[in-house]
Amino acid sequence: MKVVVTGGAGFLGGRLARTLLDRGMLDGRSIDELVLLDVVAATAGAGDPRVRTVVGDVADPALLGELVDAGTDVVFHLAAVVSGQAEAEFDLGMRINLDGSRLLLDACRVAGNVPRVVFTSSVAVYGGDLPAVVTDSTPLTPQTSYGTQKACAELLLADHTRKGHVDGRVLRLPTVTVRPGRPNAAASGFASGVIREPLAGVESVVPVPPEVRMWVLSPRHATECLVAGAELPTEALGASRAVNLPGVSVSVGEMVEALDRVAGADVAARVRWQRDPAVEAIAATWPGAWDTARAEALGLRGDADFDAIVRAYMDDDMP
Amino acid sequence: MKVVVTGGAGFLGGRLARTLLDRGMLDGRSIDELVLLDVVAATAGAGDPRVRTVVGDVADPALLGELVDAGTDVVFHLAAVVSGQAEAEFDLGMRINLDGSRLLLDACRVAGNVPRVVFTSSVAVYGGDLPAVVTDSTPLTPQTSYGTQKACAELLLADHTRKGHVDGRVLRLPTVTVRPGRPNAAASGFASGVIREPLAGVESVVPVPPEVRMWVLSPRHATECLVAGAELPTEALGASRAVNLPGVSVSVGEMVEALDRVAGADVAARVRWQRDPAVEAIAATWPGAWDTARAEALGLRGDADFDAIVRAYMDDDMP
Repeated sequence: MKVVVTGGAGFLGGRLARTLLDRGMLDGRSIDELVLLDVVAATAGAGDPRVRTVVGDVADPALLGELVDAGTDVVFHLAAVVSGQAEAEFDLGMRINLDGSRLLLDACRVAGNVPRVVFTSSVAVYGGDLPAVVTDSTPLTPQTSYGTQKACAELLLADHTRKGHVDGRVLRLPTVTVRPGRPNAAASGFASGVIREPLAGVESVVPVPPEVRMWVLSPRHATECLVAGAELPTEALGASRAVNLPGVSVSVGEMVEALDRVAGADVAARVRWQRDPAVEAIAATWPGAWDTARAEALGLRGDADFDAIVRAYMDDDMP
Repeated sequence: MKVVVTGGAGFLGGRLARTLLDRGMLDGRSIDELVLLDVVAATAGAGDPRVRTVVGDVADPALLGELVDAGTDVVFHLAAVVSGQAEAEFDLGMRINLDGSRLLLDACRVAGNVPRVVFTSSVAVYGGDLPAVVTDSTPLTPQTSYGTQKACAELLLADHTRKGHVDGRVLRLPTVTVRPGRPNAAASGFASGVIREPLAGVESVVPVPPEVRMWVLSPRHATECLVAGAELPTEALGASRAVNLPGVSVSVGEMVEALDRVAGADVAARVRWQRDPAVEAIAATWPGAWDTARAEALGLRGDADFDAIVRAYMDDDMP
């Protein structure tokens, strides 16, 4: 089978690519070709004859038309401009997050073989005056341009699925933490930095108060959920294609307590609290918890607790 | 002040243009220029020195950039491909209903003077497993491409409003009936035909069973609501810019009973029932009633009952 991953050089895309190559199989069939599209060259699976690395623009319809053909079985659409950048660079966010998604769905429609499309959406589709626990069917009321673009792409994916152009699955990701490497422009970046930097011996500045509650998932489980999302039988999903993935509800203060328990007080002492109103305003719009009964019924699993997330980072990704 | 109406040659656009020209004022200021954009030449206000009739494409960014300038105070965005056509011609619906809306909002952003934008949305943003009474904050779960495109445009308008690019108002229209003239490609066209054709001495074929319940508004009140929507003070709307306009909840069978009462049994006898599964499938997704407490609190008014709607057509529009 042929699999296409957009955002294949990204953090989740690279991890997904390595997982797919290691498994060698998806939905009971062997993966013959894995296309990794990104604006920079993906490094996952370098030298593997199954991998085709493509450097290009996810909002380029000609390129998408070439990559997504009638032999494409599964598309993982991860390419996105993150929240902070989409807020600062409006046109760029619209082009990558909205046009890119739309053009990819169009390429699938033209291909004509109804590929499975796994689209990563976000907590950012919710916002404003939310219920205490968000469910899969809570109204989408994004309060950022990023969330708006993701919500529009969800609606378009649902319509293309209804029309029989694709077999779409929307996985709404909790904040994925702990991300390795350098900070990115996501407003939620501090949720990784607060663990990653102190473990590296570096001070971490947290721009929100300790009470801010987040809904988080480890990269390990996020990747597993992406694979499981692609393998879900069509009939298990029914009319509603969007699933809120399971997460751990944790305040930023509790994150630091977990760091203290797992890595020690010396490490946790490297956290400095310094509020940034711009980040705080965005963070205030995220739900702190959501109901994941449907995700769990579908076999999509999250982490046991935040301590496990810290340990997963130390095992999988810490340099 | 300068006012731009997209879809200015359409049924509601023409009626809105005539109303604006008759009033001469909007929000306490005199209307100096009224731009009527459509794919065919608008006829409303022909010869009136305030009117500029423009034939062009609402998805042409250069044209929008020319028409919407820093002197534009209010934009009524009515241009749309109707539901039946958007379902049959997917690309056309996307281009006019989604791209057109997006590009118009972008033109407003570039103009930089935060114009009021009144956008007509639709019951079609709802669908599927709905509550008995739909409210302004019921989740948007469109079951047609038209509804999907309207829902995306609503989200984009909310984001541009949040960013301070426009002062947006979304008015979700009930099915507007009775429309004069020829049938159009809207799936809801029968709701006008069932009254209009019998009154013209012509048989009307109704493609849905008499039990199908609709939520309807006369052209007269729809036009009044558009004007009132433009005049709503910004602070009256708050964060949620979408308002479900008041309507009358009526079954198609009750429509024919009203026609019998108002115009006589001979007229009502010209209705023939012949189900069309394609139309019936779309009609089944529309809500039959919605809560309009917010619309009424904002001073937006609908019709007294369906008999009044039939009489309004006979007074205002019957040839």
